[in-house]
Order: sequence, then C-alpha cells, then structure tokens
Amino acid sequence: MKSEIPVLDRTVNGKRLVYLDNAASTLKAKSVIEKMADFYLYHYSNIHRAVHTLASEATMAYEQAREKVAQFLNAQPEEVIFTSGTTMGINLLVNSFVRSGLLKEGDVVLLTQVEHHANLVPWLRASKFHGFRIDYIQADEKGVISKEAIEKATSVKPKIVSITAQSNVTGQELPLDFVREAFPNAVLIIDGAQLVPHKKINVRALNIDFLVFSAHKMMGPTGVGVLYGKKELLERMEPFLYGGEMIDKVTFEDATFNILPYKFEAGTPHIAGVVGFGYTLDFLENLGFEKIEKQVEILSRYLVDSFSKLDFLELYGPLDDSHHSLVSFNVQGVHPHDVSHVLDQMFGIATRSGHHCAQPLMSVLKRGSKIDFPNSTVRASVYFYNTMDDIDTLVEGLKYVRKMFVG
Amino acid sequence: MKSEIPVLDRTVNGKRLVYLDNAASTLKAKSVIEKMADFYLYHYSNIHRAVHTLASEATMAYEQAREKVAQFLNAQPEEVIFTSGTTMGINLLVNSFVRSGLLKEGDVVLLTQVEHHANLVPWLRASKFHGFRIDYIQADEKGVISKEAIEKATSVKPKIVSITAQSNVTGQELPLDFVREAFPNAVLIIDGAQLVPHKKINVRALNIDFLVFSAHKMMGPTGVGVLYGKKELLERMEPFLYGGEMIDKVTFEDATFNILPYKFEAGTPHIAGVVGFGYTLDFLENLGFEKIEKQVEILSRYLVDSFSKLDFLELYGPLDDSHHSLVSFNVQGVHPHDVSHVLDQMFGIATRSGHHCAQPLMSVLKRGSKIDFPNSTVRASVYFYNTMDDIDTLVEGLKYVRKMFVG
Repeated sequence: MKSEIPVLDRTVNGKRLVYLDNAASTLKAKSVIEKMADFYLYHYSNIHRAVHTLASEATMAYEQAREKVAQFLNAQPEEVIFTSGTTMGINLLVNSFVRSGLLKEGDVVLLTQVEHHANLVPWLRASKFHGFRIDYIQADEKGVISKEAIEKATSVKPKIVSITAQSNVTGQELPLDFVREAFPNAVLIIDGAQLVPHKKINVRALNIDFLVFSAHKMMGPTGVGVLYGKKELLERMEPFLYGGEMIDKVTFEDATFNILPYKFEAGTPHIAGVVGFGYTLDFLENLGFEKIEKQVEILSRYLVDSFSKLDFLELYGPLDDSHHSLVSFNVQGVHPHDVSHVLDQMFGIATRSGHHCAQPLMSVLKRGSKIDFPNSTVRASVYFYNTMDDIDTLVEGLKYVRKMFVG
Repeated sequence: MKSEIPVLDRTVNGKRLVYLDNAASTLKAKSVIEKMADFYLYHYSNIHRAVHTLASEATMAYEQAREKVAQFLNAQPEEVIFTSGTTMGINLLVNSFVRSGLLKEGDVVLLTQVEHHANLVPWLRASKFHGFRIDYIQADEKGVISKEAIEKATSVKPKIVSITAQSNVTGQELPLDFVREAFPNAVLIIDGAQLVPHKKINVRALNIDFLVFSAHKMMGPTGVGVLYGKKELLERMEPFLYGGEMIDKVTFEDATFNILPYKFEAGTPHIAGVVGFGYTLDFLENLGFEKIEKQVEILSRYLVDSFSKLDFLELYGPLDDSHHSLVSFNVQGVHPHDVSHVLDQMFGIATRSGHHCAQPLMSVLKRGSKIDFPNSTVRASVYFYNTMDDIDTLVEGLKYVRKMFVG
C-alpha cells in the first residue's frame, strides 16, 4: 500500500509524515493519479457534443465513471449527478426545491445539531429568503444524537429531513434506518461526505431520496462530487445551474431541459476529475470495500482505546460502536491550534484543529465540557492506509504537548 | 511544442490526429499535467483550515495560483473567485444579483443574439421567476454584431449588459471598449470563455465589472473557472453557494460571511485544479501571450483564406479583422454531422458540428442562409499549437466530403 501513496515516504520537519487529517481530505494513490494524467494527455476532449474519436473516447470514459458510481450506490446511472462536491450537492437541492415549489413558506426542514456548515448554511439562508422553517434534532452534551432525540423530533412533522450520515466532529454514525422509519413520508437527504469513504451506503436498501458526497475524501480528485437522487424526484425538479448540455430547446424567450442526468449537469463538467473518480472506485474496489471498512474500524477502536488512557484529554462524541474513523478532543490547558502546531513541528503529525465547519455544535459541546472550552477541538482522523504505529506516534506527541505547555 | 502535447503523436483511424476542436476544449501540456500529478502525490491536503505542513504547502500553492490569475487580468487577488467554470460563473452572478436586490422586477438585462446558452439560459429562467426583462443586441443575417446594433440597444436602458467577448459560433470579437462607452452606467459582464485563451483581457483598462472564463479552454485542467469581479460590487453581493470556508459566524439561526474572495468559495475547492491552472498560466506565459495571440491570428487568417477558395462552403460570421480562431460553415448538400464524421473517420480530423450551445443564433443564421440550412454548422477552431498543415488537411478532407456526398 505504501508504494501507492508516495507522500507517506516524505519527511515533514525531519520526521516521517503521520497523516491524521483524513476527514478533511485523503491522500492520493499513484496509480490513480497516473491514469488520470494519461487520460488528460492521450484521450482528453470535451464530451457529449461531438462525433470525433477523442470526444467519443472521453465521453465513454465519463459515462463509465457514472456507471461505476451507480453500481457503488446500488442506483441507476441516470440517478447519478456529478457535482463539484458535497457543498454543491446540498446547494443544488435547496435551490431546486424552492424553485420547483417543493419547499414553501410554512414547510419544516429538519436538520440535526451536528451538521457541517454545508448542510446548514444553505438551508438557513434560503429560509430567510423563502420563509420555510428549520428545526433541529437535538444533540446531547457530548454532541451525540440519540434515538430518543430523533423520535422526539417527529412532532415537528418535517417535509424534508436532511442529516449527516456521520458527524465530522463527533465521529458518530447516525442510525439512518431508524431515521427513515421515524420519518416515512419526509424527503430524506443524507450528507455522506464522512461515511461514504469507509462504509458503503446502499441507497435503495435504506430508501434514501438524496445522497451527496465528495471524491476527494476517498482518495479521488478534487472538484468532484456526487448527488444521487431518486429518479421520480429529480424529474419533478427545476435545474439549479443553467447552460450548455442541460437543455433541450432554447429560444430567445425560454428553454426546456434535457433528460436525466444531463438536466443537472450544466456546462463542460470536470471531465478528467469524474474519469479519475472512476479510476479511484476501481482502486478501492480492488482493495475491497469491506476490507477498508474493517481496517478503519480497527484503527478507530485503537484510537479511542489509546486516547482513553490519556487522562489529560477531554474527548467528545460517543465512544461506543456508533463511533468511526475520527476523534475530536482537547488537551486540557492547551489551545487546539497549539496542539496541532506542535504535533506538526515536532512529530510530523498532521491533525486538524478549529471548529471543523460546525460552529453551532461547538456551543453544544461547550455546555458539556468540564474544561475552559476553547470553542474548537483537535481532530485526529484515520483512513485505511494509516497504521497503529501512526496512532502510537500521536499518543507520544500528545504527551509531549501536555508536558511542554502544562508540565 | 509537439513534445509537450503527446496526443499530437497519436493516430486516429490510422491518420495523424488533426485537432481542430479547440473552441470546445484544448489539448493539455505534458509538463503541466506532470506538475499537477506531482502536487497531488507529494504536496496535497485540504487548504486554509489547518496548521500542518501539507496544508500550508497546499494553501500557498492555491493562493499563488490566485495571484497569477490576478496578474494575468490586471486585477487584485481578492477580486479573483475560483469557480467550476464559465457556466458556474454566470449562474453565480444571476442568482447573487437577484438575492442581493441588485436585479429586480422591471429591470432590463441586455444580452446579444450570439450568446452561448451559458450566458442566456440562466438569465431566461431567472427572468421567469423574478420578473426582470431581457433584451438583445441584434445580430445581422451573418450572425455579426455591428456597432450600429449596439448603439441602437442603448434605448432599452439596461441595468446589466452581459455579452460574450467572442462568439463561439461566428468567431467575432465584440468591440468591448465600444460597448463600455455605449453603456457607461450599466453593470458590464463579459463572457471570456472564447477570447481569453488567445487574447489577454485587461479588466481595469476596459473597465469591466465582471469577467468569467474557463481553464480547460486554455490548456488548463477541467472543473476550474475564474470569476473576476470588482471588489466594491462583490462586497455588496449575497453569496451564491453556502457552506464551509465562506462563513464568518454561524449559529443555529443564521450566518455571516467571510471576506473576499472566500465569501464566494464555499466548500473544499478544486484545489489541484486551481494549482494546475497556475502551472498552466506559467506555461503559457513562458511561451508568451503575445506570441500565442499572433500565432492564432495567423492560423485564423489562413483558415478563412483557405475556406474562401472552396465555393461549396457557406461561411458564417464576419471574415474581417474582428474574426478570430474559429470558422463555422456548412458543406452545401451535406449534413454537418456527416461532415464531421467523415473528417474523423477518413482523415483523423476533429471538428465539431451541431448548434454549438447557441440554438437561438441558429435561427438568425437560417434567415441569412442561401442553402437548406440544417439548424447547425460545422466548426473548425484552432489554438496556437495547430499548423498550416492541419488546415491544408482539413481543406483536403472537405473536398473529399463534398465529392463523396454530392459528387
């Protein structure tokens, strides 16, 4: 594996790189990047609208990537829309719902208190302009969403339920099947940015209406995201972006739109990125999605167990089986930015510190915190290529940090 | 140069590839793609929000690309917004204007009759929802926009003038300075997708308010576009996409926004693409932008001169000095798709045929056509790496096509 990820041979500040910032973005695989470069240099052209050979090759490669994604999700190819990322996916849905009259004044959209800004700010701003209401499934003081809290929220009778599959701050995987049962008639949108990279989501088995996620968090290229949507819903929706390729007929007065999935893919898409994401899925499938899931589980468990032995840490989120791939924490008496900075400088360890694009959740964690909560946390996140040795180095680093700042 | 573009050594259907589809997208340079691959494999991480070494390196590379674009346009870095492409840039502007109250019922938006769907459909659909009016600068029967037509349109008193710098169908470069003078008080938006790749636009000298263009049409990666906007205008505008990175403070009730340019860059951007576009600008600058402009001029002139000798062609657009880089035409008696198909199959020549994402313009050209106009054209488009030999091959191919179908 290491030979596939050459940056792992790099030293950072004189130390072996220990990359524990996978929840922000993952490292890339040599064979995938090389194939993508080969595509750019030997098979590239704009797609769909031409009859020449390069265009045919590029179009075929692009549409093959769509089929791979469809297979990965257990969806139909026309239900797979390529976007520029998870954020774009949510913005597309919010705007399209409003334009199509599917979301109106008086309607309720239900989110959770642990959402990333990407699944929060688009709804908040649109609610200001269009008068629908937003409500939240409450998190407890550790930032955990319980089944009781989900059940309690059914009383607001939401038209739309839009929730993350896994919090990027607490690491909790939300019980999607339980949510589906609790809201049988709501449109269910799942933000899969964190979960999809290490745990397959079967959209049909879970009866999900929409799913969004990003390629770059699962070793794929940047600038590529996926929006899965049920065909019957997508067909009723007004497009979000207008331009080339997504139209049927255009006059000087108005336009009609192309069939799915093209209706939602305006303009020249990120052709090489989409093709590259197809190569990425091949790469991950070759390794085995189940193996990836298992390996992330083993590393997550080891991370939690190792951290539990450090009494100077405050840990957030659930630490039971609903917990995966990342831990948010604070070193008592040390600001998160100082923690990350020293880990990088002295140990070559990459972690992330800040509000993790979830500012409102920070106010929830503050309530439960027993320390002088800095409104931010340090986050260590693993992917399957990490090792227990990486986590041991992190533990060693954290002991050093604590000693350096507190004694 | 040829060693930099390895696909030019490829054969297509047993013939040397002759790539004349540059207006749709250009070929890529080896050194640029290799540098981008190197970035992905050795310096990649998510940007902005972390303090570790890889994140610093990636952030610096990303922001350096922004500075290069700013310099290229004679703008300030905070006036350069990275988008996923030209189409996204226009959609961003239309939506943000409406949300900010800068575009209201009763306002007039002036376009031209030669706009690409990307600078047409977003306005058309938003006008249906928000009640502003759209008017057009008229094209003549050859699809040419005259100064008289521009002057005549001043009577509609547009609040916004949004026009292409160069038509992707007729090849005409519009007189931007004349347009600016004719509409001194309108917000002026320029679609630079076709012109910018071969002719620099100085946004300050031309007093342009907004400029959009795409990297992939100038040897850059896919999925990257630029929106230049005057700072004082961008500051007054509501964001288009909401999510991570573009916020200042977020609560469960509302959000405030980050400073420019981040306010308009929600979510994880196409980091490697933007960095790669920076490398592309270095590559083009090394060759010399003036040389590129001159070379495209020479090839365009040769293309027009060669075509003028073929009496079985009907040519569209102006053939004078306002004409650059591409020619749209029909072979009398042969459908454009058949023309492109045979050129590809028998000669390895890549051309494009269709409505070129400008359906309404086809109805204008039909009025001026002396043949049974097929509502589409063939388009041959050059970039600086093309040769006169390519054009000679095309001429040979067209003679063959004419003979094959008509005799």
